[in-house]
Amino acid sequence: MTKRKPASAGPAFTLSFPQLDREIPSHDGETIYQSARRSGVRIIGACGGRGTCGTCRVLIVEGEIDAADEKMLPGAGTATKKRRWVRACQVTPTSDCVMEIAARSLAPVVRAEFDTGETIEILALDPAVVSREVSVPEATLADNLSDLDRVIRALATPLPEVDLVAARQLPAALRGGDWSLRAHIRERKLIGFSAAGSQTLGLAVDLGTTNVAGFLVDLQSGARVASLGIENPQVAWGADVISRMNHAIQGPANAAELRQAASTAINALAHDLCLSIGAVTADIVDVAICGNTAMHHLLLGLPVRQLGRSPFVAAVRDAMDVKARELDLTVCPGAYVHLAPNIGGFVGSDHVTALLATENYWRGGTTTLVMDIGTNTEISLIHRGDIMSASCPSGPALEGGHISCGMRAAEGAIERVTVEDGRIKIEVIGNRQAVGLCGSGVIDAMAAMRDVGILDDGGRIVGQHPDIADVDGKRAVVLAPGVTFNQHDVRAVQLAKAAIRTGIELLLRDRDLREYDIELIVIAGAFGSYIDVGGAIAIGLLPVLPLDRIKQVGNAAGVGVRQILASKQARARARELAQRCRYVELSTRSDFQKTFLHNIGFKHRHKVRRAL
Amino acid sequence: MTKRKPASAGPAFTLSFPQLDREIPSHDGETIYQSARRSGVRIIGACGGRGTCGTCRVLIVEGEIDAADEKMLPGAGTATKKRRWVRACQVTPTSDCVMEIAARSLAPVVRAEFDTGETIEILALDPAVVSREVSVPEATLADNLSDLDRVIRALATPLPEVDLVAARQLPAALRGGDWSLRAHIRERKLIGFSAAGSQTLGLAVDLGTTNVAGFLVDLQSGARVASLGIENPQVAWGADVISRMNHAIQGPANAAELRQAASTAINALAHDLCLSIGAVTADIVDVAICGNTAMHHLLLGLPVRQLGRSPFVAAVRDAMDVKARELDLTVCPGAYVHLAPNIGGFVGSDHVTALLATENYWRGGTTTLVMDIGTNTEISLIHRGDIMSASCPSGPALEGGHISCGMRAAEGAIERVTVEDGRIKIEVIGNRQAVGLCGSGVIDAMAAMRDVGILDDGGRIVGQHPDIADVDGKRAVVLAPGVTFNQHDVRAVQLAKAAIRTGIELLLRDRDLREYDIELIVIAGAFGSYIDVGGAIAIGLLPVLPLDRIKQVGNAAGVGVRQILASKQARARARELAQRCRYVELSTRSDFQKTFLHNIGFKHRHKVRRAL
Repeated sequence: MTKRKPASAGPAFTLSFPQLDREIPSHDGETIYQSARRSGVRIIGACGGRGTCGTCRVLIVEGEIDAADEKMLPGAGTATKKRRWVRACQVTPTSDCVMEIAARSLAPVVRAEFDTGETIEILALDPAVVSREVSVPEATLADNLSDLDRVIRALATPLPEVDLVAARQLPAALRGGDWSLRAHIRERKLIGFSAAGSQTLGLAVDLGTTNVAGFLVDLQSGARVASLGIENPQVAWGADVISRMNHAIQGPANAAELRQAASTAINALAHDLCLSIGAVTADIVDVAICGNTAMHHLLLGLPVRQLGRSPFVAAVRDAMDVKARELDLTVCPGAYVHLAPNIGGFVGSDHVTALLATENYWRGGTTTLVMDIGTNTEISLIHRGDIMSASCPSGPALEGGHISCGMRAAEGAIERVTVEDGRIKIEVIGNRQAVGLCGSGVIDAMAAMRDVGILDDGGRIVGQHPDIADVDGKRAVVLAPGVTFNQHDVRAVQLAKAAIRTGIELLLRDRDLREYDIELIVIAGAFGSYIDVGGAIAIGLLPVLPLDRIKQVGNAAGVGVRQILASKQARARARELAQRCRYVELSTRSDFQKTFLHNIGFKHRHKVRRAL
Repeated sequence: MTKRKPASAGPAFTLSFPQLDREIPSHDGETIYQSARRSGVRIIGACGGRGTCGTCRVLIVEGEIDAADEKMLPGAGTATKKRRWVRACQVTPTSDCVMEIAARSLAPVVRAEFDTGETIEILALDPAVVSREVSVPEATLADNLSDLDRVIRALATPLPEVDLVAARQLPAALRGGDWSLRAHIRERKLIGFSAAGSQTLGLAVDLGTTNVAGFLVDLQSGARVASLGIENPQVAWGADVISRMNHAIQGPANAAELRQAASTAINALAHDLCLSIGAVTADIVDVAICGNTAMHHLLLGLPVRQLGRSPFVAAVRDAMDVKARELDLTVCPGAYVHLAPNIGGFVGSDHVTALLATENYWRGGTTTLVMDIGTNTEISLIHRGDIMSASCPSGPALEGGHISCGMRAAEGAIERVTVEDGRIKIEVIGNRQAVGLCGSGVIDAMAAMRDVGILDDGGRIVGQHPDIADVDGKRAVVLAPGVTFNQHDVRAVQLAKAAIRTGIELLLRDRDLREYDIELIVIAGAFGSYIDVGGAIAIGLLPVLPLDRIKQVGNAAGVGVRQILASKQARARARELAQRCRYVELSTRSDFQKTFLHNIGFKHRHKVRRAL
């Protein structure tokens, strides 16, 4: 994933995606893929635009493109040919274009399947927003109450307040709906009016550094009705939060770019999710968002200068309720966004929602680590009722980022690497030709290299092996034709695993605990669900523990943010949890560096793996 | 006052007024006076830009002007001469200009004079916003609470919420103020932070159809510290509310123009008022606004289509609290605007605040009329605890508008007309050459014409008299050289007074009362303060009552809006009053037309005057 600064010029062309009902701007010189990412159009693009994975195929239906570099696909070449398939990352539009994304290149909206009888997630409901249908008599000279008074009279509830924009829409809503409408009420305030019979939806968002996941919830039944993940368009300003914060610090216009990118992603999710169920974004009457503290600040436009340098102070830590329109979110006009509470400078609300969602595991007093492995890895040690929370800058390597053949978990990604008869074997998502390596494959590849003895304790690729070859003058393991894992990649993973392991050690040390005292490790996060725990132990990412002490619970942050979307009690509980967590700043500790260096090598841990 | 549509083109030049610390855009072809009015620059311009009154004198300090029509002032003529005095309504800039407004042409900021020992208005305080000074320890790694948590800890108050824009400013406010600041708190929400030691000010606004009055109140002492009135820039779209509503109905861009004009006026008042006392607009932490229902809707961007036609329904009647920034008001970032409650379609919150401020007069159960005479005249009949409220479309004539030589009450305006030895005598504001006639003079002129017998019962100018002359082929009374009062003017006043008198009659009729049953008439409003009550009775504007039953109380709406600015109790009381008022729609009543026609003539009322 390379750092790409978006062109500063205004939009040159418009790209239309009729299948998504979207039109987006294309800036001068941008590839179609870059434009799509910036606007949250959900093209997969697993390799991040390097042109290796082929997961960004689009059909140019109308318009001209510059496809000089696009030689691989049939029909590519000159700009005059119409209706041809191209890789969006390899072509630049030279006119307005209409296009269609290949079905397999479109990140899927996962719809709850009510007809199949499978388990549907139904959330406990105690929603902040409730909706009521009202019908009122038409205004006459004899009954000339104001529109609002008329609605309030019919609701028979004292509601002292109305949102300004909702009020602006009320006269047309009443008269256009033949004096019937659906009123959305939050606390004692009318926040919106929609057509009678419309839905009452909520949007939960897990705003990750790399990916943004959106979940549409029916706030009347509590059912999750659709889910979708897209890349965070902020990656254009750097894969990591530090790069983005440094950009935002340069000035208000820069900060606005990042803020707008986050809002664009959320709006794109809201749009595509609603489209998938035949709703409109105005039916979204409540929004809940979790994310790390930097994502939180960049979305809200809060200053990050003080967050990015010692003593790493957040502007706001606690939960906030902000009007959605102040963040340029195009949902119900008076809807609020609930920002889940953060814990500290680098442990954000996504960790709080993960703690909330996993509370059943650790509530009883078990000494537990709850960790969410990602670009930043958050770890909480729960021991005797205390929660100590820390953040480890693990970087994107464990998610396939900054790895030479890394890619996201999509078709063509190597997701498993094993050893069979002394040779390295791979499993590829979609059972097709491998084009890269995703996060779980990265850990496995390292473990396999240790297993066959070509990675020494210091992390050097050593010795002779049929799977080692010389690639561009450097020794590398060849996992598949064109998919290699080299010394640089090994180093990136070493830094990541050392950071995480150091975090665990320092948290334990503060409570005078040893690794074996951990009764349970709860691994949250989409990525953490896919890793082979044995491999993670083998490379030293996780402590040496019996495997039954390690639970992979999937995207707990996503579960938790849906819980707070659906329930005021869950919001209150999340605030209590966040308040209870003691944030531990690791990076400035005197023992950090020593422990980190101690953890960067492998020692004898691969032998432990075999014993398990 | 002629209807002038602002040029649709973008700004051509910038006009700078260093004495006001303001820069405003000048649109193509606009006179300096037009630009100034649109931007709320407080040039008096009493005659509304006709070039007759000379109350808009400016000194061109730098820049070029087209002064082809400007022949009256020394130095006018060509575009190249520098530093010359011109009438702002007669010149058009042809470059950016720097200018100075003549002292007597600048609408005055009236400052409370604390040093002179005179009576200062001190309002009862129960403010919605309170301010507290806090000092906090600097953040360290050992004490790395978020900035907000740090401030809340020092305040030692549970404050669950912070305004988003205030939060954005907090890190800089804390660090720029050496970890001390002033926090502004509304309900349980932090709405802004300013430098330690700054003021806590409130702005009360009486948003009239013709004039906008602003009052700056110190929310810590309750003292009114400064007042200023300017013309409502919306007059560019028509002097009356119907014209403006018709404009707004044409489309969102039109409605936005009117909304912006109102906001511009309020921002200009805030700016000039703060400048006059050495404060900044960010020190304004609360705003209260009253106005008629149309002004209220146009300011808020509420639809007016349903308000302008039967059954004349407001979108919102009750009080509202809206974030100031949603109205583009440049005050404390998280400040709210409290919009006082309206009564009905054409009886607005200015009448409610007038009722609030005059409650001492009528609370005891006296049968009372409270009336505010203006372009719309609002009348409430208070009888046996009931309040019946109506609006009369009296038009601008009684304020000197739509009168051939009409002007605002400023130097050169005839404010009194009497009869001496059978001849008409005048009194002029500032004791100078008369250049026009303001509202109180209009009523007096009519009464005098009746008195000397040159106005018949039907309102025709009749007979011979030394003060009658032929002006442009029409008979007119010559009040002073160039200042005449003609048949058209008489008709305009007849319509106005008939509308008001009809309103009074119909309200009384509903309660089976006769005029003599009225125990008290409270005449509120700046204009109402200046009229000669005897003259108003003589022309039939007011019922024939002993003069001691009629109280002129000045700008009660302004007093009331200051009371609600300063006090939550007053806000609650205003809502109760508004709720209690029964709005009576007069214009659609079957007996309206007949009563109106009955009241348009004069019958024998001038004889009554002499008897009083």
